[in-house]
Amino acid sequence: MEYSTAQIAEMVKKVLCEMSTRAPETAAAANGEVPVGVSNRHIHLTKADLETLYGKGYELTPLKDLSQPGQYACKETLTIVGPSLRPIENVRVLGPLRSKSQVEISMTDSYVLKVKPPVRESGNLVGSAPIRIIGPKGIVELKEGCIIANRHMHRSPADAQAFKVKDCDTVTVDVNGTRRTRWYDVQVRVHKDFRLEMHVDTDDANAVGIGNGSKVKVVKETC
Amino acid sequence: MEYSTAQIAEMVKKVLCEMSTRAPETAAAANGEVPVGVSNRHIHLTKADLETLYGKGYELTPLKDLSQPGQYACKETLTIVGPSLRPIENVRVLGPLRSKSQVEISMTDSYVLKVKPPVRESGNLVGSAPIRIIGPKGIVELKEGCIIANRHMHRSPADAQAFKVKDCDTVTVDVNGTRRTRWYDVQVRVHKDFRLEMHVDTDDANAVGIGNGSKVKVVKETC
Repeated sequence: MEYSTAQIAEMVKKVLCEMSTRAPETAAAANGEVPVGVSNRHIHLTKADLETLYGKGYELTPLKDLSQPGQYACKETLTIVGPSLRPIENVRVLGPLRSKSQVEISMTDSYVLKVKPPVRESGNLVGSAPIRIIGPKGIVELKEGCIIANRHMHRSPADAQAFKVKDCDTVTVDVNGTRRTRWYDVQVRVHKDFRLEMHVDTDDANAVGIGNGSKVKVVKETC
Repeated sequence: MEYSTAQIAEMVKKVLCEMSTRAPETAAAANGEVPVGVSNRHIHLTKADLETLYGKGYELTPLKDLSQPGQYACKETLTIVGPSLRPIENVRVLGPLRSKSQVEISMTDSYVLKVKPPVRESGNLVGSAPIRIIGPKGIVELKEGCIIANRHMHRSPADAQAFKVKDCDTVTVDVNGTRRTRWYDVQVRVHKDFRLEMHVDTDDANAVGIGNGSKVKVVKETC
């Protein structure tokens, strides 16, 4: 088998590209390793929806700080229901309150509920799936707001700079769990309140056999 | 940045290796595409265990042929229970009967049951997890037999030969689902009664957003 100079040049270019895109995280702390946080299904609420569900003047009861600064799990849990009429109970509310209510579930949950949420980044709710939230004092019928969260990674600005990525870039991640896997298109989110952590839902975590605190590895930026 | 002749040779060799390992499936039918079958949790039974669960002389009731010739789903479903005492109901029995009873669940199920099954190929049960199976006439307490099935791919001998793989080889598979993913270490199983199909469990299928009949693509043999 013979190759032309052009073919060989193409191959060398390809490998050089791989090597160069691998360089940033090799230089970064911990060899490109990122700790994982597994997100179970959860709910973010507006003040108005909180009051519909729990009554006028009600306030969330913080239970436990989450790894991202300022975010917390609340004592409150709610029931969600879709067209199947098979409810999912004990869905945790996360604080603080937001400007739009949002229900994040897994695809496994979506089959129970018979809803068809898109895979989206948090906050991008236009045209997402409808869902009903049942509270002790009232019911909220969201016309949209149910999503399956995309795979994403939180980074501080300093960390992003060291890693040579910016907000909304995507990276490729290898996972050495009980079933070895590569995740493409992992969205990088950069904010001054973020700390380094990759967020996946329970479907992704259970498919590969990892849990909170497991380490995954950025192998390259997705070109 | 400069590279020595040895470094360039190494890069070229790497790319050539990739190209050559990619060659077999490019030549094979359908460009390396493999249809997917999603396995929900299920049970295989021995004759003795079937009779414990349903009574002496009981026979399975075939309900629907599965894609692998000779395999079928049965009308019978059972309840399984582990240390959590939270049962999972309606677990389908698959026929025909086997020489060892086996319960295949997902990692998501394992958290409900509080069992710790290994990720294994079917039939490899030594030291696997214990589980209880509840039937209408009796209970079977398996000391071992509960596993999470590994990712695997069925191929006929002719297909395996065309694809240049043999039984128990592993291949790497790319999945273009709602969340793009690469599965490493996919075990190839070759048998005269097999037809081309990749089997994954509900965790893997839901993590990537695919279902029965979706196509995945073998990208290379795992070296």
